[in-house]
Amino acid sequence: MKIEKSQSVAVIGLGSMGMGAAKSCINAGLDVYGIDLNDIALTQLKEAGAKGISHDCSDFSDVLDAVLLLVVNAQQAKTILFTNKLAEKLKPGTAVMVSATISAEDAKFIEAELNMRDLLMLDAPVSGGALKANLGEMTIMAAGSDAAFEKLQPVLDATASKVYKIGSEIGLGATVKIIHQLLAGVHIAVAAEAMALAARADIPLDVMYEVVTNAAGNSWMFENRMKHVVEGDYSPASMVDIFVKDLGLVADTAKGLKFPLPLASTALNMFTSASNAGFGQEDDSAVIKIFSGITLPNKGE
Amino acid sequence: MKIEKSQSVAVIGLGSMGMGAAKSCINAGLDVYGIDLNDIALTQLKEAGAKGISHDCSDFSDVLDAVLLLVVNAQQAKTILFTNKLAEKLKPGTAVMVSATISAEDAKFIEAELNMRDLLMLDAPVSGGALKANLGEMTIMAAGSDAAFEKLQPVLDATASKVYKIGSEIGLGATVKIIHQLLAGVHIAVAAEAMALAARADIPLDVMYEVVTNAAGNSWMFENRMKHVVEGDYSPASMVDIFVKDLGLVADTAKGLKFPLPLASTALNMFTSASNAGFGQEDDSAVIKIFSGITLPNKGE
Repeated sequence: MKIEKSQSVAVIGLGSMGMGAAKSCINAGLDVYGIDLNDIALTQLKEAGAKGISHDCSDFSDVLDAVLLLVVNAQQAKTILFTNKLAEKLKPGTAVMVSATISAEDAKFIEAELNMRDLLMLDAPVSGGALKANLGEMTIMAAGSDAAFEKLQPVLDATASKVYKIGSEIGLGATVKIIHQLLAGVHIAVAAEAMALAARADIPLDVMYEVVTNAAGNSWMFENRMKHVVEGDYSPASMVDIFVKDLGLVADTAKGLKFPLPLASTALNMFTSASNAGFGQEDDSAVIKIFSGITLPNKGE
Repeated sequence: MKIEKSQSVAVIGLGSMGMGAAKSCINAGLDVYGIDLNDIALTQLKEAGAKGISHDCSDFSDVLDAVLLLVVNAQQAKTILFTNKLAEKLKPGTAVMVSATISAEDAKFIEAELNMRDLLMLDAPVSGGALKANLGEMTIMAAGSDAAFEKLQPVLDATASKVYKIGSEIGLGATVKIIHQLLAGVHIAVAAEAMALAARADIPLDVMYEVVTNAAGNSWMFENRMKHVVEGDYSPASMVDIFVKDLGLVADTAKGLKFPLPLASTALNMFTSASNAGFGQEDDSAVIKIFSGITLPNKGE
């Protein structure tokens, strides 16, 4: 028996990642329905070729083969699926790909609720940023049944350059993403700590940046984020509060496993301090502002 | 007036970096004198074309234009130069390039003592590993007077692919290297923390490694060192005790500046715990062994 190719997909959450993923699905020839509360985003996707747009995914539940959830957190995913009863309206066999960064526990809760309604679930967090999402080249860390993978193959093909099949157990994808965020968050925080110490020691920050990015002390995050510090530009690419959330998920995950986190717990405190000091909506490199007694470069200097 | 080209250089400390640097100087046509307590290393350098070898650099002090110190720490450098009185025997104007990883305070102490004897000093820590040293492609972070830079230009040309001139004040080179080591050490420790959590969460470590090294959570150290963990091979490339020493220098530097180190202080504790548990002479990735309740890959599995 051949699994029917998924043709109609709703993308819920048209932020930077969701908009890119939705456009990639349109480019791949799928029938795409865009769902968001933001009318500007809806109009933009309609002009890009969406079959339909709405504030409420239930409007299209009869025709959908798949739903891609690219919302901000688990609470939004659960509200849409269960409080607002989308899950009750989707056809049996519809596949729901949950790509928000959420805990393994939340992923398992969502799976249980979806399974009761004969819906498939893929636990499939993404990474890569808006640029990669636009190109259909996201990285996806996915866990779920073979049936879920097969049903979502057209969506995976359209949106990702790399799909890691972590396993069949829901929650493994979420956990891999969370451990990735542990590294990303600590790398930003330690980059800030190192650059702050350099500023205190009167090392020119552009020189420090140049040395580190050409040596073994480099990280992807150091290279990407400390450029913002050297340029004094804290316009948010990704915000401090995102890492308050994600390192919070790291802490929850470790607590559930009764596992210590000597470094990530400290990094969470650093981002929390930065948010508490009023920098929550700035670029995550603004975590460097928790250090006193240093002079940082200003924009345009 | 033309500065005379440095032709004769003694390399003191023929470990993996020193041996590579000495051979690179030979390859560049300099007259090289090799100094070490290890006769095997001396013989090896003699066969590679050294003009002279000895346990004691004083044997060649009359002919030397430059001395390159690639010893393990500041104590060794001070013992050789002052306790053993090499500094008193070198010709006035000889340039001493101190490339051990030492504190800015020690670098300044050495400078003061050398200046009293009319000797030049370059504060010039290196990075890049044995392979780069062998190719004459080390990275050098240097501070010192124009006269010191000029006198050592032939040695810098022979040994480095990249020389960062941090400034003229002795100690700036040492500080840049120490801040680099802050990043390197925390990156290894957080790589271990992440992989340990993955092991606890039943994520296959080779999958976790593959995901991270292809995503924004990657660091040079994660990619290089966690391969050892995935392969279960803790043969020392660089040892746990090196980071006990180097993160100790980071802590001393921050203490001198009265600057906090939320992450690096924790990483120092992690390496110290690993050393205390008996892993000091293993590869620095063995810091992962401080985590209990996990099963790590064994070599050859």
